[in-house]
Amino acid sequence: MADAKYDVLGIGNALFDVLVRTDEAFLARHGMTKGSMSLIDEARAAAIYGDMGPATEVSGGSAANTIVGIASLGARAAYVGKVKDDQIGRLYAHDIRAAGVAFQTAPAKDGPATGCSYILVTPDGERTMNTYLGAAQDLSPTDIDPSEVAASRIVYLEGYLWDPKNAKEAFVKAAGIAHDSRRKVALTLSDSFCVDRYRDEFLSLMRDGTVDIVFANESELHALYMTSDFDAALKQLRNDVNLGVVTRSEKGCMVVSAEESVAVPASPIAELVDTTGAGDLFAAGFLFGLARELPYRACGQIGALAAAEVIQHIGARPQVSLKELAQQNGLVI
Amino acid sequence: MADAKYDVLGIGNALFDVLVRTDEAFLARHGMTKGSMSLIDEARAAAIYGDMGPATEVSGGSAANTIVGIASLGARAAYVGKVKDDQIGRLYAHDIRAAGVAFQTAPAKDGPATGCSYILVTPDGERTMNTYLGAAQDLSPTDIDPSEVAASRIVYLEGYLWDPKNAKEAFVKAAGIAHDSRRKVALTLSDSFCVDRYRDEFLSLMRDGTVDIVFANESELHALYMTSDFDAALKQLRNDVNLGVVTRSEKGCMVVSAEESVAVPASPIAELVDTTGAGDLFAAGFLFGLARELPYRACGQIGALAAAEVIQHIGARPQVSLKELAQQNGLVI
Repeated sequence: MADAKYDVLGIGNALFDVLVRTDEAFLARHGMTKGSMSLIDEARAAAIYGDMGPATEVSGGSAANTIVGIASLGARAAYVGKVKDDQIGRLYAHDIRAAGVAFQTAPAKDGPATGCSYILVTPDGERTMNTYLGAAQDLSPTDIDPSEVAASRIVYLEGYLWDPKNAKEAFVKAAGIAHDSRRKVALTLSDSFCVDRYRDEFLSLMRDGTVDIVFANESELHALYMTSDFDAALKQLRNDVNLGVVTRSEKGCMVVSAEESVAVPASPIAELVDTTGAGDLFAAGFLFGLARELPYRACGQIGALAAAEVIQHIGARPQVSLKELAQQNGLVI
Repeated sequence: MADAKYDVLGIGNALFDVLVRTDEAFLARHGMTKGSMSLIDEARAAAIYGDMGPATEVSGGSAANTIVGIASLGARAAYVGKVKDDQIGRLYAHDIRAAGVAFQTAPAKDGPATGCSYILVTPDGERTMNTYLGAAQDLSPTDIDPSEVAASRIVYLEGYLWDPKNAKEAFVKAAGIAHDSRRKVALTLSDSFCVDRYRDEFLSLMRDGTVDIVFANESELHALYMTSDFDAALKQLRNDVNLGVVTRSEKGCMVVSAEESVAVPASPIAELVDTTGAGDLFAAGFLFGLARELPYRACGQIGALAAAEVIQHIGARPQVSLKELAQQNGLVI
């Protein structure tokens, strides 16, 4: 295995988040399922946005949030995702590069606008996402630079990539290159409805060894194995993948492999403001630890700390240096 | 005086805020004066933005922030300001309308992009603004709808309007219509460097009765009368305008008229996060009280409360209902 240029390379849907605090009635009025991610077309985006209150905008996208978190922890990180060359796409590219992430994907010159996720945050802090994929729809295998993938210790892919029409080919191409270069491939299951859409494909990716590491939250795990029995689902996950990491909100996380099972508690918080990015930042901390070859417990602790930071403010990108935060908490030196 | 359709109509530079937390070294490196607003051209905007970290975007603009605050308090508010018909301009128009503000100014079809203010927030919470006026440069007297001005109890104008080339004509036109309709005209001095640029003109507006009410902070007041003697400056302000309102950060505010002087303390806060919009939201609360014909002390208290809300988070727009906040604090029923 050659020396790695990047600790982690992430591939995902590049999305600009438009966030607003709202009430439960808004979700009901628009027929939204709280806590989920729904794909919407331009007409529905206009209807939802037209009814939304004044918003705050922050760059987002699940894998991108994770990659920014990894960079904030001090690791070398790269991202592949498709924006358009428009005003919002330029804000997006600025933000991810300014976070220290290598981002070389060519923006689309024409076609749909940069994708946006309209995110409703209810008083309980839960986020409900409505995603217009826009230019993210056009991510294709040609956007994958084989040398960049081969030079990355871990390739991290989001399950949401199964939604755009060509992105799954980009996903499979990247995973193949990674394994040819003896790198690791990680997948997040993204969302329980996403799991419902692509259950068999995700299970195949795990069972045929396309992915080595799987991140899931409880509801995604239950959706994957179509059971409400957590222990039974966890046991199946352990059989299906080399390393499984399951987040359980305030109950912390479970890490399972053939050799061991580790439970790591959540980090304490002062106030839950907005859960957007909780899972993404947990994955950031965990992958950072893996890239540094730390024990799973330490990986989980850094993940929990990063998740705790991001849920105490609006938006899914860290607002402080996660490296300094981890140092202050004695998790890294 | 006919019944008013709006309590307050604001006219100002419509600007999208691009906010980032940074350190003192950034300001030094770019030769910025902490706490001030500097006008920048496209080249300098690119240089500053290129060096800025990942940002958060929130609609802004001084008078617009005030008007949104007035709407949030439950009053009827309208705004005149120029954006371009581009992605950012559409975000801007959404946000102000979604706040309940009447906003009818036609967006520019061509010319420069929607204006942006690049705002650096240092660890002490102070904000330093770098404004690319963009489309705001094109606000002109034709954007002033006489019937809208005549139907507004108070017309509120920002001193910053002296910067774009035609906006001061729009300002004077609006003030004339307002007085013809026996309405009140209020002016904020905006920024001490702005006062330095237009001192004589601002004093003329006050002394010839074009404006009835002036908002200033301490440094703007000192700049206006070129003195460091607060009491002497306040005395001159009382002579020059019917109603003067001077904010003094944590020391509260002073309200002066020919009849009385009132000191109102600041509202307590848990944590100073970002001073962006402090003066704008103070003016919102004060003008709301004036439109409701409340005593000056109550006007100042509502202003102090609104300012306290906005400085405890990133961005210059309120994140909660100011009406509910004022009710909880027993300031309105």
